[in-house]
Parts: sequence; structure tokens; C-alpha cells
Amino acid sequence: MDVLETPLETRLRAKLDGKTKPQGALGRIEEIALQIGLIQGRADPVLRAPTVLLFAADHGAAEEGVSAFPQAVTAQMVANFYAGGAAINVFARCFGLRLTVVDAGVKALSDVLPEAQARADTALDPLAPRLVRAAIAPGTRNYVHAAAMSAAQCAAAIELGRTSTRKAIAQGTTLLMLGEMGIGNTASAALLMHRLTDVPLAACVGRGTGLDDAGLARKHAILTRANARVSPDVVDPHAILAEFGGFEIAALVGAFLEATAQRCAVLVDGFIVSVAALVAIKINEEARQISLFSHASEEQGHQRLLETLGAKPLLALGLRLGEGSGAALAYPLVQAAVAMLNEMASFAGAGVAERV
Amino acid sequence: MDVLETPLETRLRAKLDGKTKPQGALGRIEEIALQIGLIQGRADPVLRAPTVLLFAADHGAAEEGVSAFPQAVTAQMVANFYAGGAAINVFARCFGLRLTVVDAGVKALSDVLPEAQARADTALDPLAPRLVRAAIAPGTRNYVHAAAMSAAQCAAAIELGRTSTRKAIAQGTTLLMLGEMGIGNTASAALLMHRLTDVPLAACVGRGTGLDDAGLARKHAILTRANARVSPDVVDPHAILAEFGGFEIAALVGAFLEATAQRCAVLVDGFIVSVAALVAIKINEEARQISLFSHASEEQGHQRLLETLGAKPLLALGLRLGEGSGAALAYPLVQAAVAMLNEMASFAGAGVAERV
Repeated sequence: MDVLETPLETRLRAKLDGKTKPQGALGRIEEIALQIGLIQGRADPVLRAPTVLLFAADHGAAEEGVSAFPQAVTAQMVANFYAGGAAINVFARCFGLRLTVVDAGVKALSDVLPEAQARADTALDPLAPRLVRAAIAPGTRNYVHAAAMSAAQCAAAIELGRTSTRKAIAQGTTLLMLGEMGIGNTASAALLMHRLTDVPLAACVGRGTGLDDAGLARKHAILTRANARVSPDVVDPHAILAEFGGFEIAALVGAFLEATAQRCAVLVDGFIVSVAALVAIKINEEARQISLFSHASEEQGHQRLLETLGAKPLLALGLRLGEGSGAALAYPLVQAAVAMLNEMASFAGAGVAERV
Repeated sequence: MDVLETPLETRLRAKLDGKTKPQGALGRIEEIALQIGLIQGRADPVLRAPTVLLFAADHGAAEEGVSAFPQAVTAQMVANFYAGGAAINVFARCFGLRLTVVDAGVKALSDVLPEAQARADTALDPLAPRLVRAAIAPGTRNYVHAAAMSAAQCAAAIELGRTSTRKAIAQGTTLLMLGEMGIGNTASAALLMHRLTDVPLAACVGRGTGLDDAGLARKHAILTRANARVSPDVVDPHAILAEFGGFEIAALVGAFLEATAQRCAVLVDGFIVSVAALVAIKINEEARQISLFSHASEEQGHQRLLETLGAKPLLALGLRLGEGSGAALAYPLVQAAVAMLNEMASFAGAGVAERV
């Protein structure tokens, strides 16, 4: 037995070992059950009102051409989320997940989605997608030339993430899936990762939504310039976040911090959300405990980041979409794990013989 | 484009590429959607009444001590499945899966479950576990000393699998999850794998439900003796199956063959079901097309077998339970894939710009 094992952990392990299966035969499913029990501080954890919180914002650096898609796609995809047509909507409907999209700083959202439309959703059924319009600004500044956001903007974005999380928890959720949308945000995430870990910038920069070799080389050159703008002496996670972050990433950091404070489990999506987890862990290392890493994406920095965080992702499906789609796809594993812990028979209860 | 691509495959790929996501960004989820479309022969495949077929039987060779659990556990676990307390029951309830347990040859089932009880299930709701009592014999013979089953028994077990599959398809299912229960059946599966592939016996033999090093060495020694009993000239898959198989494994082979004939998709569970897939593929190579391999288990021969079959499992969760539990855990990925193909918006439909 681990010398640091708590009485609850001992109780959870004994409960798992008493189930009608060889010890450990459910592998990672048993680990998930254990972690959720420890997060909630109980041997009979509860999964209720699982909720996807999807933060969206635009990046000033998109004007440098760091993405294969035009910036207008951020707003268009938010409208798609609201209309129910995106991958995350399909997966949320499959698994009965609530979906709240938070506009943390999308540039021209009103061009594609009149404000009035998003405000009339008070009577919606709980599974209809909700949209919160709370833009800090119409996109960040271009971090090649200046800090992406002011310290006040950064604090406001973090607070937006905390508020959104507080609201979801108040509405009953015990499991958050965090997602993001923002053209150019793998570039921002790569800079944040490089500045907060020992990993060289080149290993943090990837193809995002589908850059070719030339596009990848240009992205790396642009990020090298941006990185050089800020002295290596700047190491504070809030400062780094303000220099290179996006409003959606800062909001995700806030979501992690609030979920940590309230001991609410979080299913982490792909590269960008994992980078937000990294920032949150640098601010409060307890954020690690409430985080379940859902998948290893195709974005090249992600696997390296997961190793750095000592995280073992649940899925490896070659995803590179974002939106919280990987977290949603991992949700049924958490559902199955918690149900197994709560509902599966014990050897004694079912009259099944234990091993010879 | 692959020169062998069919018009339907071209149509499916175009449909996937038109969805509001970067091309290929949903990785394996897109591959699942493509495979299900090709199996059903349509660009809008249908998932209906997903059903777990769980075949159970005892193995004469269990008396040699090839398992960490006593033989009585097979019958006890069948009673547990029927009562709803096993892992597969929990997962089936989570995901809305039907569960039919087929007694293909459990030794002392009536000791723990009176026959009358299992016959009174005609009025059950579709999600209550069903039990079909159709034992070929009370367990196979010990293959160390004689063929596990006669040719007639083997044919009857295959036919039982075909009948069970035919019934499930007639009741509306378009997706089968195949599972098994039988103390000692990783030993049987190891022999079958060795005889039908180029893989050395030692690489096919694993710890099953949890043998220690000494137990593993003994299992290997016993299987070496059993293997030596039958001339290497015997290569016909039906003959090998009769020599070393279990009734549940032969029934699984029949299930694969019937699903192949009716173009019904199958989610393959762990080592034993994968070996049944191997036998079926040796009989009819089209069985490969309808098979989706759900997970790479901890049983040592499984990874090697998946490589031999050119199969890329969807999950790697360290499972080693059987019962169809891994197939059930992969079901939500298939559900999500088919829903994505059918429901997700296209770039044109949602007014989202494509890449620059």
C-alpha cells in the first residue's frame, strides 16, 4: 500500500477489488472511478448534469497567417454551435450533455448571429445549446507586436471562466468538459507551453487545423519573433498568459481554478485545453487532481505536454478538432466507471467464488 | 484516391470531408463512420437496437488448473449476468444496450440458476438481460487427452451462434457486440491462435484472469502437451476449433459468420473474441470487413493477434475482463461516429468558410 494512501483511497480500492471481476481487470476504468471518488471525497460519487463549457475568442495574431482557416470561421463556428450543427453538438446529443458556449472575445459575432437571438434562450430545454455573450474585447492584440491582453483583461477573462463554472456547478453539474474555439489558438497555446515548460518552441508548434510544411515553417518563424519580444525573465503564469494567451484560454484557466476550488471533476479536451490546464496547475497545483485527460490529439505538442504533466490520456483517436469534442467522446468512459463503482455486484453479494 | 475505392466509399469520404471541421480532424471517428457505411452499403447508415451477445461455456481443460479461478465461477457469473450485477450489465444499462446471454455449455448452471427462472422472460422489457439455455454439453472434454468436441458438437455450437445472431438481427439490431465467459478460455484461445497463425505458442499464452509466474509457466507446459497431441498437419479451421475450442468460442465463430452473411457490424471484444474472429476469417475472409476491434487488452497474445489481423483497436484501457465489456465501452464511439455522419452540418449548409 502506498504510504500516502488516504483512508478514502483505501476504502475505494477495497470496494473496487470486491467487485465480481479479477482485481484490476477493468484497468483504466477502475482508475477513473478512483479519481472521481477522490475528487468528490466519497466512495459513492455522483455524476449529474454533465456539462460542456466551450469558450470562444479571436486572436490578433491570426492576421499573421498562423492558421489554415480565415479568422471569420471563429464567429461562424459559434453560430454553428448555437444552431446545433457542429461535432460537439452531435456528441452532446448522443450522450445527454449540456452545452454552454461562452463568447469570451469573438471578433464579429454579431455579423453572423444577432445579439437578440442569443438572449431569448431562458426557456430552452436543458440540452439545447446555450450561448453567453461576454466578450472581453473583439479579439486579442497581435502578440508579435504587443501583449495580447492587458493584465486587467486577463483577470477579467479568468473571472469569466470562474463565473461560468460557478454557474454550471450551481445548476447541478458534477462533471465539466472544457472545450475551445478560436482560429489561431494552437499558436497561442504553443507559446504558452514553451514559456511554462522546458520544451523547445519547435516541439510545441504543430499543424493546427491543417497547415502544410510551408505553413508550419511560417508559423514557427512568427512564434519565434513573438517569443523574442518578451524577456525570458518573465515567468509568472499570469504575465505569460497576458502576453501570449487568448481570452478563451484565460477563461479556461479560470474554469480550472474554480473547478479546483469546488472539487468538480474536469475532462480536459485536446492541446489548447491541456495548455490551459498547465497554466492553472502553475497557479494552483491542485488543479492537477481534478483533471482527467481525455485524449492524445494529433497536434504535435500535445503528446509532449501530456508527458510533462504526467497525464495518461484515456483515448487516442487521432483527433485534432477541439470544441471539447474529445472530452465529450471520453464522457461515456467516466459514466461507465462511476456506474461500475456504484452498481456492480460484489463477490459476496452475487455468490461468486474468488480466486483459488 | 485508392484505385479500389468504390463509388459508395467515394460518396462517404466526400460527405465526411464536407462536414464543418478540418478534413480528417475526427480521426478514427471518421474511419468508424466510413466502415459502418460500407458494411451497410449506404451513406446514411442506421444504428438500431445495439445488442451484446454473450456466449458462455466450460472447458474440460480447466481441471488442469489453467485458470486462477475455479470452474464453478462460469455458472456463478452467468447467474450474475442474469441478475444484472456484472460489469457488462452496468455498461449495457449505461449505454442502452440489449444483452442476451447464451449458455453454450456451462457445466453446472442449474445448481445456481433453476431452469424455470430463465424461461419466464418473455414479458421482459427489451433492456432486461435475457438468458438462452442451449448447452451443447456440460463443458468440453479436456483437450490435453482428447479432442475438446466432436465434429458434430462443433457444428452444433457454430449453428447456435448463427441462430442467436439471426434472432438478434431479426429483432432489429444493426450492431452486435460479442462477448464470452468461460473459466479457462484464454488457454483454449491461445492454442487456436497458435495453430492458425505463425505466432509461437509462448507468445499466445498469457495470464488470463491473473495467473502468477508459476501459474503462467504451468499453463504454458499444459498447452504445449495439448498442442503436441495433434499433428501439425491438421490446419483446417473447423478441425482446429473442434480439437482445442470451447463451445462459446465455436458459437462466436458462428456469430461472426452469420453477421458476415447479413452485413451486420460487429464490435469485437478482447482476446477470446478476437481469436473467434480469426477462426471466422480463416473460414470466410469477408468476416474481416464487418469487424470493428474495440480494444487492445492486457492479455499478452491479444496485441500480437491484432497486428496479425491488421486491426487497429479503438481503445487501450488495460482491460482483461471479457464479457463483452470492452466492446460495450467502445459502443459510444460507434454511436458518435454514425450520428456525426448523419447529423453534423456541412460547410455550405452552416455558412462556414473552408480553408484559405
